[in-house]
Amino acid sequence: MMKRSLSLALLFATATAAAAEVKISGYGRFGLDYNDRNASSGVNGIGAPANGVSSTTITSRLRLQFDFSTETDGAVTLGSRLRVEAESRDNVAVTPGFNGAYFFARYGGMTVGVGNILGAIDAMPGFKINNPATGIGIDGAGFHDEVANVAANVAGQFGNWDAYSSTAAGPNGLEILYKSGAFSGHLSYSRTNTDIAPVGDGIPGNASPSNRTRIAMNLAYTFGDWTAVLGGQASDTAGEDKLILAVMGQVGPVGLRFAYADNEGIRKYGIYGDMDVGTASNVLVFVTSEEAADAGAIAQGRDNRDNVGPRVGALADTGGEGESYGVHYSYDLGGGASVEAGAVRSSNDQTQVQAGVFFRF
Amino acid sequence: MMKRSLSLALLFATATAAAAEVKISGYGRFGLDYNDRNASSGVNGIGAPANGVSSTTITSRLRLQFDFSTETDGAVTLGSRLRVEAESRDNVAVTPGFNGAYFFARYGGMTVGVGNILGAIDAMPGFKINNPATGIGIDGAGFHDEVANVAANVAGQFGNWDAYSSTAAGPNGLEILYKSGAFSGHLSYSRTNTDIAPVGDGIPGNASPSNRTRIAMNLAYTFGDWTAVLGGQASDTAGEDKLILAVMGQVGPVGLRFAYADNEGIRKYGIYGDMDVGTASNVLVFVTSEEAADAGAIAQGRDNRDNVGPRVGALADTGGEGESYGVHYSYDLGGGASVEAGAVRSSNDQTQVQAGVFFRF
Amino acid sequence: MMKRSLSLALLFATATAAAAEVKISGYGRFGLDYNDRNASSGVNGIGAPANGVSSTTITSRLRLQFDFSTETDGAVTLGSRLRVEAESRDNVAVTPGFNGAYFFARYGGMTVGVGNILGAIDAMPGFKINNPATGIGIDGAGFHDEVANVAANVAGQFGNWDAYSSTAAGPNGLEILYKSGAFSGHLSYSRTNTDIAPVGDGIPGNASPSNRTRIAMNLAYTFGDWTAVLGGQASDTAGEDKLILAVMGQVGPVGLRFAYADNEGIRKYGIYGDMDVGTASNVLVFVTSEEAADAGAIAQGRDNRDNVGPRVGALADTGGEGESYGVHYSYDLGGGASVEAGAVRSSNDQTQVQAGVFFRF
Repeated sequence: MMKRSLSLALLFATATAAAAEVKISGYGRFGLDYNDRNASSGVNGIGAPANGVSSTTITSRLRLQFDFSTETDGAVTLGSRLRVEAESRDNVAVTPGFNGAYFFARYGGMTVGVGNILGAIDAMPGFKINNPATGIGIDGAGFHDEVANVAANVAGQFGNWDAYSSTAAGPNGLEILYKSGAFSGHLSYSRTNTDIAPVGDGIPGNASPSNRTRIAMNLAYTFGDWTAVLGGQASDTAGEDKLILAVMGQVGPVGLRFAYADNEGIRKYGIYGDMDVGTASNVLVFVTSEEAADAGAIAQGRDNRDNVGPRVGALADTGGEGESYGVHYSYDLGGGASVEAGAVRSSNDQTQVQAGVFFRF
Repeated sequence: MMKRSLSLALLFATATAAAAEVKISGYGRFGLDYNDRNASSGVNGIGAPANGVSSTTITSRLRLQFDFSTETDGAVTLGSRLRVEAESRDNVAVTPGFNGAYFFARYGGMTVGVGNILGAIDAMPGFKINNPATGIGIDGAGFHDEVANVAANVAGQFGNWDAYSSTAAGPNGLEILYKSGAFSGHLSYSRTNTDIAPVGDGIPGNASPSNRTRIAMNLAYTFGDWTAVLGGQASDTAGEDKLILAVMGQVGPVGLRFAYADNEGIRKYGIYGDMDVGTASNVLVFVTSEEAADAGAIAQGRDNRDNVGPRVGALADTGGEGESYGVHYSYDLGGGASVEAGAVRSSNDQTQVQAGVFFRF
Repeated sequence: MMKRSLSLALLFATATAAAAEVKISGYGRFGLDYNDRNASSGVNGIGAPANGVSSTTITSRLRLQFDFSTETDGAVTLGSRLRVEAESRDNVAVTPGFNGAYFFARYGGMTVGVGNILGAIDAMPGFKINNPATGIGIDGAGFHDEVANVAANVAGQFGNWDAYSSTAAGPNGLEILYKSGAFSGHLSYSRTNTDIAPVGDGIPGNASPSNRTRIAMNLAYTFGDWTAVLGGQASDTAGEDKLILAVMGQVGPVGLRFAYADNEGIRKYGIYGDMDVGTASNVLVFVTSEEAADAGAIAQGRDNRDNVGPRVGALADTGGEGESYGVHYSYDLGGGASVEAGAVRSSNDQTQVQAGVFFRF
């Protein structure tokens, strides 16, 4: 995996309390998105009606992140995080609002989190592609790549775990993270209120029952160049029980990762490899295979999530062959900036191609 | 009263104009809230139906504050303030927005304020409990403590004065503050537009007439260790005329305060004491007594304000014995952080207990 | 034109990447607004009914601007901008949200912009009055002055071009700016999605068709103390084709500008002059004349845009004599602050007078 400067963030120590600090950081990205689901005729066998959006549109996002923290005399760090994201997908620009706050207390290797928590599934090492787009292309192909490459996403069951939300209130849960030497563990919990309207996780097609309780955990162990991670979620909502296994490591210049998930009976496998090319480039490829891909029709909302915003008619989807493929190319421009490009074809026969620039600040 | 570092705020002078500055500051807090009004059965004599929220929930708030100012060649300071607050109460997390802006011009001891003004009642010295929670527990018991301890809050008449709002547009008024030696004065004014929808003050149960005019004033004088404050409000809206008197001072290690308010005929008395214990702790207690507490049924919305968010059924309230009690404990952790805990029982028989951590940045 | 310090903005280089920076800047302003359209009786010949708002109200705005950028090893600057504006007009305070993001890539004299673009008409040199209020008074008389003084605004056709929006998503377009020596050029393009609800430009009375495409351009050339600018817009929406010409320069202590626009057949002419008086003052006057001012009734929403917010009854308008006049006075207080005052009477017989303070940070 290509090295990048990870900490371009502004960091100011306060004048009167050396312990307290405010960090302002974020990133911008913009580029072109080709999505064969937009402007489709409805007679291409996919079943998606024309939605009035061009196949090729500009995609962009600006993320602004505020990090606040202080340290007590007893070496406990207390902190919080808030984000703002302005986004345009499919030629619909959205004015941003703040997301829900995340709070934490950290002492040595132990962190307790409250509020818009990370979640033990979503923050599991080896769960997602680890690059600036967190996936394929310039915006992760509108999360389309996650549908394709994340082992815990299968037809009819997408994104049904607790995850830090950059745009909504998020899980409003509780979590404990622990790290000691080669071992790390993460336990998360959330419960929605009974008898009141669900807060939901903001993901279309992912209905939230009114009193959902989720418990998730991951355990990771690193031996030499390799790391093995086991994760799982128990939920009182149908379709949300998960068991996930990931193994990843370095073989000379090549980074390799294997992922497997049992999604309440629907299994999905994935293999991912990336390699530095020359001094500034990195190429990544993946292939995944899932059972029961024909059940995809159920998940149309999520499956075509790039098609957010107002449209005519929902995008019906009759599933697909079960295999998904993706390729991603990254070129480091220096100064925290890079060119990012990629293509992904998912098991529901949707194809997206993207290229653009990405910069951190 | 325990001393805290009051100015952890970031303060940056600009490169090109030494007079202009931007300050970013705020605080985070999170902890547990026990509220006997949640999950109640409706047969406990309080009359509150079950609302589907657990009796014990996590409460949290992140406040982010921006302060902007410059100084003219004639030594007039011109400035403005904007806030953002992310909050979770009763297990409902709210994504924050900005509040209304406050503007001011200051010359020597004189300040003129415009917009989301402080208000001469709400900013009156000795009006509220002066600690990180501005009250009892980690979040002021969801303002429940203010209902109990603030002399200007009585059954049926809550929060009906102009006050700086951290989450809404606020009073959009005009005020003048003056300070000279031992004397300080504050005059505020607001008027809502005639014949258009009221802006309101964002407080449930506090209906706003469409063309409300409020004038408020406070005068404070300090002699030795003691300060006496007289405040009042004249309004063209029924129930809003107020006369408030507060006297506070230090007797050895003990801080004492007495408060009295005539709320358009309904009188309320309060006594408050706090004492430093050891090097890092402070304990505070209060008791208040109000007339006409049986009128509480009118004020159900405000009286149970912790129960914000969607629910089934409103919380009816049949008033109570007229006395309210509270106790608060604070332990300084250093670095602008502290443990805050407290319990409050109000004249409408509601009990809340809270504990958590608080940190400034 | 009086000189002001233009760059009071905070500018922080990051610790780990000298190329990346975050700037926080903005301004505050507040003052009094007299608007003869408010509280009018409906029998004054203007036809505007009483709207319940006082003729004289406090106007205020707080603008907070975030600028993010980095520079690649190849000297390309990548950046983005986000704004927040809290505003009160006609005694209605608005809590602000973020606007749509603007992204750019700059190399030498060439800039490519994406998203909430500036627009080649709105950012055309000599298009607007160039002072802190971007017009007459403390808030540009609620844009009333733009109706009066901007040559591209005529009865029935207001603000119908792409412009950076400080409060909404904006055009979500694409633009190229180029500057080389005495020459500069600007080309902008935007297209709304077909068959989906229009994003609009947030301007009352300016209906947006569902699939509007706009192309605009300006070309400027500076010779000695004078600059000539030619701008134009081609749109597939009726009434939006424009041809604009501006010439401006300096004659001793006097700044002069001439503007002409053909607004799809409706012509408007303007002349503007300003002069420094003493060491800290500047006075500006303008007069404009437009054809077909009687068509003003169509544009009531925009024509009286100061009257935003809830009201009783729309303000009908029967047009006017065709000429508009304005005068503006500015007094520099130092530290980025100034007193701004002005009066404007527009071709639809509306008069506004304003005075207040303005400060940058």
